[in-house]
Amino acid sequence: MNAEGLAAEESPIGRSQVLAHLYGPIAGDMEKLREYLVAEFKSAEPYVHELLEHLSQFRGKQIRPACVFLAGRCFGEIRTDHVRCAAVVELIHTATLVHDDLLDQADVRRRVETIHTRYGDRASILLGDIIYARGFVISTEVEGAARLLAECTREICIGEIMQVGNAGNLELTLQQYEEIIHRKTAILYGLSCKLGAMLSGASPEQADALERYGNRMGEAFQIIDDSLDLVGDPELVGKSLGTDLGNGKLTLPVLMLREALDQSGRDHLLQLLKTCHESEDAAKERQEIAHLLAEHRIMEQVKERARAVIQDALDSLRAAADPGPARQRLEDLAEYILQREL
Amino acid sequence: MNAEGLAAEESPIGRSQVLAHLYGPIAGDMEKLREYLVAEFKSAEPYVHELLEHLSQFRGKQIRPACVFLAGRCFGEIRTDHVRCAAVVELIHTATLVHDDLLDQADVRRRVETIHTRYGDRASILLGDIIYARGFVISTEVEGAARLLAECTREICIGEIMQVGNAGNLELTLQQYEEIIHRKTAILYGLSCKLGAMLSGASPEQADALERYGNRMGEAFQIIDDSLDLVGDPELVGKSLGTDLGNGKLTLPVLMLREALDQSGRDHLLQLLKTCHESEDAAKERQEIAHLLAEHRIMEQVKERARAVIQDALDSLRAAADPGPARQRLEDLAEYILQREL
Repeated sequence: MNAEGLAAEESPIGRSQVLAHLYGPIAGDMEKLREYLVAEFKSAEPYVHELLEHLSQFRGKQIRPACVFLAGRCFGEIRTDHVRCAAVVELIHTATLVHDDLLDQADVRRRVETIHTRYGDRASILLGDIIYARGFVISTEVEGAARLLAECTREICIGEIMQVGNAGNLELTLQQYEEIIHRKTAILYGLSCKLGAMLSGASPEQADALERYGNRMGEAFQIIDDSLDLVGDPELVGKSLGTDLGNGKLTLPVLMLREALDQSGRDHLLQLLKTCHESEDAAKERQEIAHLLAEHRIMEQVKERARAVIQDALDSLRAAADPGPARQRLEDLAEYILQREL
Repeated sequence: MNAEGLAAEESPIGRSQVLAHLYGPIAGDMEKLREYLVAEFKSAEPYVHELLEHLSQFRGKQIRPACVFLAGRCFGEIRTDHVRCAAVVELIHTATLVHDDLLDQADVRRRVETIHTRYGDRASILLGDIIYARGFVISTEVEGAARLLAECTREICIGEIMQVGNAGNLELTLQQYEEIIHRKTAILYGLSCKLGAMLSGASPEQADALERYGNRMGEAFQIIDDSLDLVGDPELVGKSLGTDLGNGKLTLPVLMLREALDQSGRDHLLQLLKTCHESEDAAKERQEIAHLLAEHRIMEQVKERARAVIQDALDSLRAAADPGPARQRLEDLAEYILQREL
């Protein structure tokens, strides 16, 4: 599953408040994006139109497009090419969601029936493909963007497929985990920031610094998201938890716990993980893992690590962009990620 | 399901003989494509590499890339950009096959286990996505090609999704049928020919004429393929037949039969089609449809129509390209389509 959502939904501050603050300097840009996507989603073919209409109900927080605009405004004006790139990153993200929902057999997204539930698996796969293709068509209108966006898409899918290939792999290394979250989640944030900066006339070094900000921010986001799956409050997180253990997906807290244990403790943990992966329920084993995580204060260490990653994101951002409302919002966005309740 | 395969497999002439003849003038080009694809399919990620290795066993007749080269040789030399475009059209086709096999729950392709059978649905969807993305990355290296190829991909998926949306629609018009086969099958042949010609310095008018040749050739191919699904010999066609009736997919022979009947005959036919779509077996109904097709000499009319479409393809080709070995092979390719046993 892709990381989705901002800290806002789970933090004491209301989501709409946070979004209003974050998107303050780019409200007009986001409106242009909305209009652009509505026009894009008009299809002469009635059935495709119906599917796209249904899909538009899932509209999320559009953080990736917001990154294009905020990064752009750190360095200059927003032009039509920003809107195009913002649309493409949102379309790529949307296509991955449509395919993810099918893979996860999710029935509902944002309280709306998912595409495959309502229209079947065929429609779901093909609609995802159409959205990718539409994104690529738009990307060819922006000089220098098409190749970066296509490569990024390939990396996202490789990241996801690496995760699939490593399901049940109890030997997964920290390095492999980092590579997976980098590819499947972080680089689309990184590219969004880079393209926004590039299109506003940032220097290559500045654009790279913004890309680093986005990559690191995305990694921290995924680390927190993965941790919430293990120890979050389902009420607050807003989705069912513990799915990673069931899927045999090792994430940072478990990897850190594995390192913290001695040989016999480690063998025992691997046995617990195996049972969680292979059994439908395994409530006792899940509880024991939660207990071990608490006993070894793993979540504190995970949060510490996420904080360091965010700090790196902020350092990169501040070194490249002058202070101002747009940079401030990118800083706030990074800080919010750490506010999710661990 | 996408149309696949050349007449060769079903004709009395052996497949390898036909291919050797057709690909004679472009043997070196096809070898360059093979090397290019092998290099492309090398992936640093072991799991992705394994999937791509498995996939390479499905290698088919590569008619679309052959069209790029043959159309190119009608007008001039073959350059690296031809090889790139040939690779992209083959990758797009391959991606659609990976997703199709999953959608059709096909276990085997060319006697090799399909991706989803061997590696699961997740790997299958993501691998298809990776292949599309890789194709788009390559396409950005060829000036003027990326947008055409992305638009073509979107059209293919829209054609397929229209077919899904019209499953069980007994009111499907001839015009809708033609639009579906044009989009899902024909335009990738058309674009292959157009790109090949363009890259060899053909004029815009010549490139458009080659595109028309490819479009019409692809349409005729799909018409024959759909007809074989109804009345072919399973031994010769090499796959299970009658799947379209079961899927509620109306194809040209049934549409022509519907037109040929009076009101009461027509009502009866629709009832038969409904039963075929809704029942698992419906052997009696299928037999009756076959009988009606024979009684009204529909297959003869279908073949007549396919012949007219091929003639249009040939006229377009001959008006644009001078005689020579490459043009001759494109003519032969079109003729072979009509030789499949109806």
